[in-house]
Amino acid sequence: MNSIQDLIEFARIDTTSAKGRGEEGAKFIKDYMESHGIEARLIRHRSKNPYVYGEINVGASKTLLIYNHYDVQPAEPLEKWNSDPFQPVIEGDKIIGRGVGDDKGSLMARLQAIIEMGRPPLNVKFIYEGEEEIGSPNIDSFLNDYRDLLRSDYVLWEGAGKGPSGAPSIVLGVKGLLYVELTVRTPKDLHSMYAPIVTNPAWELVKILTSLKAEDKVAIPGFYDKVRHLSDEEIMFLKGDRKSMESALGQEVPNDFQRKLVEEPTCNIAGLLSGYTGEGSKTVIPSYAMAKLDFRLVPDQDPEEILSLLQTYVKNAEIKVWGKVRPYRTSIKSKIARSLIESAKEVYGVSPEVIPNSPGTGPMESFARILQNNQIADGVGVEHPGSNIHSFNENIHISDYHMSREWMKSFIKHLAQP
Amino acid sequence: MNSIQDLIEFARIDTTSAKGRGEEGAKFIKDYMESHGIEARLIRHRSKNPYVYGEINVGASKTLLIYNHYDVQPAEPLEKWNSDPFQPVIEGDKIIGRGVGDDKGSLMARLQAIIEMGRPPLNVKFIYEGEEEIGSPNIDSFLNDYRDLLRSDYVLWEGAGKGPSGAPSIVLGVKGLLYVELTVRTPKDLHSMYAPIVTNPAWELVKILTSLKAEDKVAIPGFYDKVRHLSDEEIMFLKGDRKSMESALGQEVPNDFQRKLVEEPTCNIAGLLSGYTGEGSKTVIPSYAMAKLDFRLVPDQDPEEILSLLQTYVKNAEIKVWGKVRPYRTSIKSKIARSLIESAKEVYGVSPEVIPNSPGTGPMESFARILQNNQIADGVGVEHPGSNIHSFNENIHISDYHMSREWMKSFIKHLAQP
Repeated sequence: MNSIQDLIEFARIDTTSAKGRGEEGAKFIKDYMESHGIEARLIRHRSKNPYVYGEINVGASKTLLIYNHYDVQPAEPLEKWNSDPFQPVIEGDKIIGRGVGDDKGSLMARLQAIIEMGRPPLNVKFIYEGEEEIGSPNIDSFLNDYRDLLRSDYVLWEGAGKGPSGAPSIVLGVKGLLYVELTVRTPKDLHSMYAPIVTNPAWELVKILTSLKAEDKVAIPGFYDKVRHLSDEEIMFLKGDRKSMESALGQEVPNDFQRKLVEEPTCNIAGLLSGYTGEGSKTVIPSYAMAKLDFRLVPDQDPEEILSLLQTYVKNAEIKVWGKVRPYRTSIKSKIARSLIESAKEVYGVSPEVIPNSPGTGPMESFARILQNNQIADGVGVEHPGSNIHSFNENIHISDYHMSREWMKSFIKHLAQP
Repeated sequence: MNSIQDLIEFARIDTTSAKGRGEEGAKFIKDYMESHGIEARLIRHRSKNPYVYGEINVGASKTLLIYNHYDVQPAEPLEKWNSDPFQPVIEGDKIIGRGVGDDKGSLMARLQAIIEMGRPPLNVKFIYEGEEEIGSPNIDSFLNDYRDLLRSDYVLWEGAGKGPSGAPSIVLGVKGLLYVELTVRTPKDLHSMYAPIVTNPAWELVKILTSLKAEDKVAIPGFYDKVRHLSDEEIMFLKGDRKSMESALGQEVPNDFQRKLVEEPTCNIAGLLSGYTGEGSKTVIPSYAMAKLDFRLVPDQDPEEILSLLQTYVKNAEIKVWGKVRPYRTSIKSKIARSLIESAKEVYGVSPEVIPNSPGTGPMESFARILQNNQIADGVGVEHPGSNIHSFNENIHISDYHMSREWMKSFIKHLAQP
């Protein structure tokens, strides 16, 4: 096994799921597993790209399920790349190519580590998806139909790499989401000379939006009731470099930005539309005003409950729901979290950054609910803050890749300890 | 002279200024005046369509300037018309055709009345514009360059017809306008997971908009300071049919809607735009949020002053100005207002509706300022509430047309009395 060369070979295969590609990548990784003595097969379910399933059953009492995906984001715009995205190149300590970070690198580093372990000290199951980059539209039905096959004690998520602090990252959950569209309507557009005597839906919408916030907090009664606050230990493990965050966002951020990102649910205006929005002036009273709102929810808020609170609170707008995802958080005291933290310390010699839940949203809660598993965590990834995942010149450091393989081995050993 | 037949002949000429037409209509009306002994000429100024100027100098001490326009709105959509818009037809008491209401009918009824008077008891000047329906882009410079020619004691505006109450309408002014665009920006769009720690321009804009209103009043300090309130007499002459207004607007209106339309300045949201406004969801923190606002101003508010108050009050938005028009109001005690009211009573046998200023905006203040004339009023028009001006099947009642001619004669007699 030549670890880097094998990754490069894998990354040469275009698995852009948005373009319907992936089959060849699925076969490559199945063959790779089999050639290294791991039982593997393709599962053709409702998705176009097959799932790759693998298993090492050593007869242990505990089983780790490893989730990765072999598909990648479109590489376009190609002219921004310094090299062919599907002909990975090595420059000094870097490998540059589409997918070397997200997620082929993490997939391969973990897999190679387990192969190198020979017989791991616990059972390992592998599930590789080919539709993650198009939003995993079939993952719930797949999990439902294959829940017995995927039964496990721990789930290792797709791979968190190094954070801006330089320490390895561990992520124990995700925020949830409620995405709604509020609309206020009147029968027709009117000449604005009638403004003194009629209702303007744009003003009504502004009133409603204003009522949703009070001093930067969400003002919907009951909104914060179910927020699970961070423990002192969880706060202790937060890291983050304020300067690099500000430079990435182009805005100042508060001192406790890391905690806010994890712990604060939000009501964000993602879109506004009413009346005339072109060049110059049109004196119209619009008949229609719309706001798109995304609520990022934290454990243990439930999007259904938040929607119901919103519907009770906002009386004068239509509310259309565009999305609901539940938040999820694995305990920092869980075996999987402990094992990730201890192994990271051992391998990297520094305390890792532990994020109780990502500020973003993902389908972790589906895994937890359908597979009845409450130890799901993300770690052992190969990326660094400059990896440009989803963008051009995607890259990883070769040194990080090798460290991840070591982390994987140490993690599995810790996890297998009674 | 066959009054109706002559109007129909005039209306057959397509004078759609938005399509560059008008010359033929200008020549028609100049010839019509000359053929009835009125000195007339075309004035080629900066506009594409010439101005038609006419004059009857009887050596009186007072002069009335009559303003009308010979151009019309585009007739499209043609399929909505029951007949050819430029082949006027008579159906019962109605003439149907483009421009028979706005403004060829009023132009012709007034002109024919004066012709029928033979030698009017005061000097009369006529100025007919060919660009009114495209916003009179050259009227200010024309007035400036021809202020001596247009010198007069009174100006009769283009023609107010009958209101929904059935009484003839007199309009003594217009509202002004300040049209601005407020914009709040940040350096770039961001993933909405950063909502807990960054500024969202859409929320900032909502805060600013909210600060502009307090219980349906404009909350900009000093905004109402210069509002000239209506006198008891002005209020007495207001009429209006609430039911027909509600049916026209498709909304309920307050009991005192007529007074509010005249006396209340407004801050209207004419447009809102921020972030994602398409189908479905995008979880974005927009980098840009924009509101278009039109302030309708009443005498004696000044758009420059209101802009300055706004700029002082709103600190966190760019303010771009798209339009400024000053309001104007002629006194109800003026000679021209008295003459219109008395003549209307005499001819129609009812008290007219007198609107101190229209809820809409127009260039009356330019006439007042440039021509140094503070007796400008609108009346003696041929339209009725169902005339569909600017729309399809534009029409007037033949009986209203004849009544307007009588009103014109009586008005001139009253105006000429010492």
